[in-house]
Amino acid sequence: MRTTWDFYSTERIVFGNGAIQQLGEILQRLGAKNVLLISDPGIKQAGIVDKVLALLEQASYHAVVYDQVIPEPPIDSALECYEFAKSQNTDAVIGLGGGSSIDMAKIVALLVAHGGHPLDYYGGENQVPGPIAPLVAIPTTAGTGSEVTSVSVLTDVKNNLKVGISDNYLRPTVALLDPELTIGLPSYVTACSGIDALSHAIEAYTAKPFSFIQAEGQILFQGSIPISDALAYRAIELIAKNLPLAVQQGTNLEARSNMLLGSLLAGMAFSNAGTAAAHALAYPIGGLVKSPHGEVTGLLLPYVMEFNTAVETEKMVKILKAFDINADGLSRKEAALAASKAVFNLLETIGLPTHLSDIGIKEEDVAEIAEKTLQIDRLVRNNPRVPTLHGLEELLRKAL
Amino acid sequence: MRTTWDFYSTERIVFGNGAIQQLGEILQRLGAKNVLLISDPGIKQAGIVDKVLALLEQASYHAVVYDQVIPEPPIDSALECYEFAKSQNTDAVIGLGGGSSIDMAKIVALLVAHGGHPLDYYGGENQVPGPIAPLVAIPTTAGTGSEVTSVSVLTDVKNNLKVGISDNYLRPTVALLDPELTIGLPSYVTACSGIDALSHAIEAYTAKPFSFIQAEGQILFQGSIPISDALAYRAIELIAKNLPLAVQQGTNLEARSNMLLGSLLAGMAFSNAGTAAAHALAYPIGGLVKSPHGEVTGLLLPYVMEFNTAVETEKMVKILKAFDINADGLSRKEAALAASKAVFNLLETIGLPTHLSDIGIKEEDVAEIAEKTLQIDRLVRNNPRVPTLHGLEELLRKAL
Repeated sequence: MRTTWDFYSTERIVFGNGAIQQLGEILQRLGAKNVLLISDPGIKQAGIVDKVLALLEQASYHAVVYDQVIPEPPIDSALECYEFAKSQNTDAVIGLGGGSSIDMAKIVALLVAHGGHPLDYYGGENQVPGPIAPLVAIPTTAGTGSEVTSVSVLTDVKNNLKVGISDNYLRPTVALLDPELTIGLPSYVTACSGIDALSHAIEAYTAKPFSFIQAEGQILFQGSIPISDALAYRAIELIAKNLPLAVQQGTNLEARSNMLLGSLLAGMAFSNAGTAAAHALAYPIGGLVKSPHGEVTGLLLPYVMEFNTAVETEKMVKILKAFDINADGLSRKEAALAASKAVFNLLETIGLPTHLSDIGIKEEDVAEIAEKTLQIDRLVRNNPRVPTLHGLEELLRKAL
Repeated sequence: MRTTWDFYSTERIVFGNGAIQQLGEILQRLGAKNVLLISDPGIKQAGIVDKVLALLEQASYHAVVYDQVIPEPPIDSALECYEFAKSQNTDAVIGLGGGSSIDMAKIVALLVAHGGHPLDYYGGENQVPGPIAPLVAIPTTAGTGSEVTSVSVLTDVKNNLKVGISDNYLRPTVALLDPELTIGLPSYVTACSGIDALSHAIEAYTAKPFSFIQAEGQILFQGSIPISDALAYRAIELIAKNLPLAVQQGTNLEARSNMLLGSLLAGMAFSNAGTAAAHALAYPIGGLVKSPHGEVTGLLLPYVMEFNTAVETEKMVKILKAFDINADGLSRKEAALAASKAVFNLLETIGLPTHLSDIGIKEEDVAEIAEKTLQIDRLVRNNPRVPTLHGLEELLRKAL
């Protein structure tokens, strides 16, 4: 039995409308001199890159820009960006955008500090020898939580593999969250990223208690621990209440702010507690269909919750409360099942698919998905109920 | 109106029974070479200093020891300890003990990194120019939360003044919490430190919302913000449930563990949100009588809560729920008042004084206490209801 847990956090989080105005002061406190801003063409086109550059100029920073990040960034892009950083004597990095831009920025800040190739740091936890270069992460979506997490995902294009590099040193130095930057997000992107954040929160909250995780030594995903529980639960409350609003009323700044906060808290939680079966299942499914990550984890979430209810009744009942649904007259078990139903209803409300057949998964894919899922030990061992091959197949068939 | 908030955190928290065993690995990750262990004679006598030294030897650290910390440490002690650190080429510091040892360790780690005199960093916020030397804080009481806070309090003996040095760089690099180290605490110390933690949690939770704090620029105590709310509320639940147990059953390791966790979460919360009127009132009262800090803030807490109920009803009702007390049949206002009564009852249960006259405060002290309290703007402005001179006098007379 494990008797201790670790909680790692970004040192500083700055949050609120207009927070972006503080970027200059933040960089000064970090001792930044030559700043590289990493972003993507969409953010550039939305005018956000230029807005940030103007703020940097005001603070006397003549930042250089790499705005060619593409979704699921290939390793070669990261190397290209690192070469550019070297040529500019970069000593501090800004990641501005969705998860991809921030993930790229983490790798570039890592290479700036320690050199080498991204794959040098792959294939294990805690491979990074020390702090990375000062990194300010500015999310423009409310979903990945990458602004506070220890994970960066790149794509090995040659081998069609996702390469997840995980280390507590990869957490950005400062997470800078300005809800006004998320106002322009299309409603479908809002829905997919918002439900991804809910998946982080619910999977972290219901993860197996840290004491019972079967692993030796330092692990990054530790199962449910008290601090992540407190943060994840608040995230669930915020997202349950605000996601439909943010999807339907894109300019509702209060709903946007609460979603960005929910996504942040979920990121703090799952980057310590880990996620579980829904995220494990999403890997092989993501290899078969091209749906956005959030659409897949969100779709799976109610089925995984239902699967887990047999073991984790208490927390499911609390999730029902977080959805502000009355459990009067229901048994504990009924109330717990009602929680998965609430998530299912939320998916319908925000217009996301609720069945695997909707996104192109077929009965004949089930066995392979289940088998591949079981290989992702660091997520599978985190699930409160042991996912057997048979159990996963049954779960997937229900979700078809 | 303020539109943004900051949340600062210790980068790494390690928590659990036997966590102290990880000290060597923690120091290695920090790149520590010459380690100075700062503690006090009581901890030395309890055998905890020797236990930690033995663990350090196992990890090949030949730490030097300064174990002469006294309560409310004088500035001269800090200078003496710093001179010792210089003579030993100290590059990393361990603070082991209650608030005083950890507070001293913060100042020594500050001087090791930036030189000078403690008073150079007094008289304002954010006076520290950069990170302090790597500091591992190991609390042996569940109360101050100093292992994660940004504050260190020394005593200017000549002028009989408390000198609070506050800066986000003063947060320890790693907070290492091992509930087994708190098992031997006498029940009175358990009660005083535990109720201090509850005061932190409740004052942080009910602090004025950050948007409405009247202050310009960066401030350390920002009022109620979402992350501190989530942490403080969990702290209240934990302390309400476990403090009587920890006081009555000193060897109840689960209760000790939950108290240490509650104190940690309260420290994370109040070091960002701040405390309010109970802590402001405790300063002048502490100048008149020699009661421990926790005894004074704890005694004041129910009276301050009652005073604040007129303005902050919602959160008081939630506090009642955190005490697991049924509010059925009560109006909102009655339920809110019942929360202050619950804290009053807790004081009685754990055998702490409930009236100012019990600790030697007299009617004729009231005017001076009220007047001096109003000068502590950073705490007074944090109170949800404006504390006027008349209001404070009335509050104090009720508490006599």
